[in-house]
Amino acid sequence: MLNFSDHPHTRLNILTGEKVLVSPHRSKRPWQGQVEDLVLEQRPAYDPECYLCPGNKRADGTINPDYTDSFVFVNDFSALLQDTPNEQYNDSDLLQAESERGICKVIAFSPRHDLTLPEMDQKAIEAVVDLWQQEFTDLAKNDWIKYIQIFENKGAIMGCSNPHPHGQIWAQGNVPVEVEKEDAQQKNYFAKHSKSLLSAYVDLELQKQERIIIDNAHFVALVPFWAAWPYETMIVSKRHVIDITEFTTVEKADLAKTLQELTIRYDNIFNTSFPYSAGMHQASVNNGDQSHWHWHMHFYPPLLRSATVKKFMVGYEMMANPQRDITPEFAADLLKKQSTIHYKTRQD
Amino acid sequence: MLNFSDHPHTRLNILTGEKVLVSPHRSKRPWQGQVEDLVLEQRPAYDPECYLCPGNKRADGTINPDYTDSFVFVNDFSALLQDTPNEQYNDSDLLQAESERGICKVIAFSPRHDLTLPEMDQKAIEAVVDLWQQEFTDLAKNDWIKYIQIFENKGAIMGCSNPHPHGQIWAQGNVPVEVEKEDAQQKNYFAKHSKSLLSAYVDLELQKQERIIIDNAHFVALVPFWAAWPYETMIVSKRHVIDITEFTTVEKADLAKTLQELTIRYDNIFNTSFPYSAGMHQASVNNGDQSHWHWHMHFYPPLLRSATVKKFMVGYEMMANPQRDITPEFAADLLKKQSTIHYKTRQD
Ligand SMILES: O=P(O)(O)O[C@H]1O[C@H](CO)[C@@H](O)[C@H](O)[C@H]1O
Ligand SMILES: O=P(O)(O)O[C@H]1O[C@H](CO)[C@@H](O)[C@H](O)[C@H]1O
Repeated sequence: MLNFSDHPHTRLNILTGEKVLVSPHRSKRPWQGQVEDLVLEQRPAYDPECYLCPGNKRADGTINPDYTDSFVFVNDFSALLQDTPNEQYNDSDLLQAESERGICKVIAFSPRHDLTLPEMDQKAIEAVVDLWQQEFTDLAKNDWIKYIQIFENKGAIMGCSNPHPHGQIWAQGNVPVEVEKEDAQQKNYFAKHSKSLLSAYVDLELQKQERIIIDNAHFVALVPFWAAWPYETMIVSKRHVIDITEFTTVEKADLAKTLQELTIRYDNIFNTSFPYSAGMHQASVNNGDQSHWHWHMHFYPPLLRSATVKKFMVGYEMMANPQRDITPEFAADLLKKQSTIHYKTRQD
Repeated sequence: MLNFSDHPHTRLNILTGEKVLVSPHRSKRPWQGQVEDLVLEQRPAYDPECYLCPGNKRADGTINPDYTDSFVFVNDFSALLQDTPNEQYNDSDLLQAESERGICKVIAFSPRHDLTLPEMDQKAIEAVVDLWQQEFTDLAKNDWIKYIQIFENKGAIMGCSNPHPHGQIWAQGNVPVEVEKEDAQQKNYFAKHSKSLLSAYVDLELQKQERIIIDNAHFVALVPFWAAWPYETMIVSKRHVIDITEFTTVEKADLAKTLQELTIRYDNIFNTSFPYSAGMHQASVNNGDQSHWHWHMHFYPPLLRSATVKKFMVGYEMMANPQRDITPEFAADLLKKQSTIHYKTRQD
């Protein structure tokens, strides 16, 4: 029998169809490499230099409104532009390119410069969920838009260039690579079983209780069996919905609660503002039947051993496949053990 | 006509079949995010604390020999182990795992603690190429080994835990994800055209002369049309060989020269020891007909704008697809303009 906590092994990511290498015996190797700076600054509630704070001037000269909940605007340095002409390029099938139209937005999660999601109260997080739903609905009205990527980079270590709590939405004319992979796997499963892949997966995880962190009325948060990042997690809706527009008021409140609890548990692991990239995967829009899709949200946090020692996805990982040391079961157990009261509040 | 330097567009990576998003208009956005520490230390030629220096003691108690060229040994903290039993696990096709056998080796490139590849002379790099070839040949004699990944993580920013110049080899019982992608694409092209995909690609790039950096008797170094990292490059052999064992003495000398010149050009961009992960992709072993494979070596360097500002492959990139700002043509041009004399030598 395969011993998950002793034997090096690969696990299949059923959402992408790709493998990850697990080396459980290796978690005790010493670390002599790069250590990240620990950012312990206490930020002010309002920063006159921040382009996200209410009333401040942005790069293009616009003045932010005096918003009280969350606030959304088109990114002043958008990676995608709405007025891109539709062009193709192909030389001998060897050089292939295609123009990509899109809209990039920034969402400030709170007027408070000094907060992060785990430090916001549930009502404030609900306002963010509402805005995500509204934006998704509005962006999908453009019939040329096919995919809407909602995500957040949290922490300087994750390339986040401003500590004011915010996320992004990139909407575009084609379905991106990672979403295509998940589309194929879910379509295939749904065709065979008339049940969504993630419904079946969550049912099995709820039976096993080995990787579940949060289990409430409408959502589950777990460490996927195939997690690549040390403390990678996924939030899945219990109801099979294809995208965020289907969530009811009760479900949205529950999602806010789940987000709050999960990110508090993260911060409590190393008593630090836990960096991550998080993002929702859901059905593409204006793109035919999507009933095989099941809404979910990934969290990819890089920290491994402490607030300053992260996992590097480099050489072998870039050339071959992702590799991890601690097991997903160990990570789930540690997350489950954390308090649901934020460490900063406890110290007060 | 698609304007590569103005319009956001996607390009197809013909080796993986996956897209990368290029946002050329965005290269001028200001950077307010994390800046890396600049490591300017002058290292000693010998460090008594280094586990790679000649004559020193390693974690397992072994004493390194007094080697004069390069030196190879089994990693004291191997991610893969040779004595892993062969086991499988499958619950409802939702939880799938399989044990993975392997051997992980470390190669010290030089007895000198203070050097890096671009600072070594060509003869010394030839000794490294010889050792790679020898190790590949020897590892492939184990009939259970299917793939041999030769790679190097250079620089603390790339997770390298010891500055002594070294690389790694991970050999394993199954073909990893990235190699499987390249296998499928190359097999498909070879079946259709009776010519290797990379022979056809290099021929076209040599005609265009827009992304070629080095072109000598036996190798080409170029920025691939689909490069994702800012200064990503690829070394391709002009002769269609499936793996490193086929290289003649003359070709090995030319590969050493190419490696030296490319890494010197890298260091000269920002007058810094340029970090990267580099690795060869080549045919799997003990695995039937591999004539569609064409040996090549990828360089994935993270620096974007200076010695301390790197590209972050985070939120959108993790959830959707890789994204870049400067164009591959701009990167190729800058690399072509660099001197082939190392900046440290010039300053003497
Ligand atoms: O083996 P090292 O140098 O200690 O470790 C480095 O390279 C490995 C292979 O790419 C990665 O798995 C590690 O995350 C990285 O820190
Ligand atoms: O848009 P930002 O926050 O300036 O930039 C950050 O997120 C983007 C989307 O994931 C990435 O492309 C950038 O590399 C990263 O630094």
